[in-house]
Amino acid sequence: MHYGIIATWEMAFEGIKKGFELIEKNFSSEQALEEAIMDVEDNPEFSSVGFGGLPNEFCEVELDAAFMNGDTLSIGGIAGIKNFSNPVSIARSLMKNRFNNFLVAEGAEKYADLNGFKRKNMLTENAMKQWNLRREKVMKEGLSPYDGHDTVGMVALDFKKTICCATSTSGLFMKLKGRVGDSPFFGSGLYADSDIGGATATGLGEDIMKGSISYEIVRNMEIGMSPQESAEKAVFKLHKKLSDKRGKAGDISVVCMNKDGDFGAATNIDDFSFVVATDKQPLKVFKLNRFF
Amino acid sequence: MHYGIIATWEMAFEGIKKGFELIEKNFSSEQALEEAIMDVEDNPEFSSVGFGGLPNEFCEVELDAAFMNGDTLSIGGIAGIKNFSNPVSIARSLMKNRFNNFLVAEGAEKYADLNGFKRKNMLTENAMKQWNLRREKVMKEGLSPYDGHDTVGMVALDFKKTICCATSTSGLFMKLKGRVGDSPFFGSGLYADSDIGGATATGLGEDIMKGSISYEIVRNMEIGMSPQESAEKAVFKLHKKLSDKRGKAGDISVVCMNKDGDFGAATNIDDFSFVVATDKQPLKVFKLNRFF
Repeated sequence: MHYGIIATWEMAFEGIKKGFELIEKNFSSEQALEEAIMDVEDNPEFSSVGFGGLPNEFCEVELDAAFMNGDTLSIGGIAGIKNFSNPVSIARSLMKNRFNNFLVAEGAEKYADLNGFKRKNMLTENAMKQWNLRREKVMKEGLSPYDGHDTVGMVALDFKKTICCATSTSGLFMKLKGRVGDSPFFGSGLYADSDIGGATATGLGEDIMKGSISYEIVRNMEIGMSPQESAEKAVFKLHKKLSDKRGKAGDISVVCMNKDGDFGAATNIDDFSFVVATDKQPLKVFKLNRFF
Repeated sequence: MHYGIIATWEMAFEGIKKGFELIEKNFSSEQALEEAIMDVEDNPEFSSVGFGGLPNEFCEVELDAAFMNGDTLSIGGIAGIKNFSNPVSIARSLMKNRFNNFLVAEGAEKYADLNGFKRKNMLTENAMKQWNLRREKVMKEGLSPYDGHDTVGMVALDFKKTICCATSTSGLFMKLKGRVGDSPFFGSGLYADSDIGGATATGLGEDIMKGSISYEIVRNMEIGMSPQESAEKAVFKLHKKLSDKRGKAGDISVVCMNKDGDFGAATNIDDFSFVVATDKQPLKVFKLNRFF
């Protein structure tokens, strides 16, 4: 029997360690993913997810998260939510609905209040300091303000052969109020089908959304490609399409896992890291460069 | 040279007529789509789009819209916006950005204010009456409150061979505040690539999002299928996947057009209508039933 868990970015190391232990103790991939992502959300040192996430143009921390269960295709997602500590848990809880699985802004906050989720001020002193520094730089030097879009995305496979995916992000630093990237969007930021596999993406959401890349990766696996080939083909295809049609492509990095616990990853940048632990691959951080 | 425009639902008849005339006068597919969808948004008789759209749980009209240009893959989208008359125009204007292409709720409203879009109370007396009736029925009879999710989605091909897609909806009647369906999500509610074709979907957003169906249709066309075959294969695949994994599938209806102006449509319900006009097919409303 195969099982495992994989995540975008080295920051997920402790989370993946915890999630893998849960899977080995026969917890569900849903439970493992929620705990693993909460670990990343709760750490104020990570400036692109949850507590400590970098704020929008008005110095507000607006968070996005999503969850998908590959057994039932159940989905849950939120976007532009403020002042709740664990967006991923709210997204997971929305999966139980048949309708109203995706909620934004004030509506998402109302749902979270009604369903007992804990409010928390998510803006740290350090994030506020970064915001002030960036604002000064942008005003003085006229630089593009956008940087630091490192979404945590994970795929997990458990003993019952259930594959789930989840994502959590604070989005683009200095984003316009209400801006949402690919992270909480099914097919773009994440996709899971337990009969095939799961995938998740990180990078410039505005470009990733142009190619439904997580769905594309799962579709590649469906027709028989290995996870690694599926990831590489999908990243290359979208990168080429963006380059041909727009002259340039934003950052695109992906990780995926199939129903046999084999994993893959690909990127069009030079410093992507990911973390994986499976029954075949002991917990490890990989560093990856652009492969083409 | 081939050209044309296609839309979900008979309510788009006047809009498609207007849009087709614009394309014949050498206007861009972007311009034609915006005008065609505005026609639907502005008509208070259509209870699922724009002015006259049915409200959410709190009797607020929250609107979603999106736009995609298949030459550049540029995207623009908004969700959960209140009190603006033409969501499709706001979505179109967001396509010019490299970042911040998708905005929700208050953030979308701020953008619209700053960019000169006109505020308008979108709740009609009739919509309020419907809301009161439905609320009474739901309370007395314990019925599921959800119905009437007829998104307008369109694909257009112009003289310059540009394919664009756009959508506009008020979403599920009685939806939770902040609920967003598939309509404004790229890959799910719409997808366009001028080298291949474009597609758009309507139905139960919560189920359509589980299959990135517009992207799937375009991918089918990419590997050589006709638009009709692409639409049928995609609807059947998602319907089967939902039925197998969940025991039932919500409404799924799609229309599409390829770069040669050939069109296709498919549905898993018994009363789907669509409107089309091309250089080969004079303006016509088609009625379609479940094909399998």
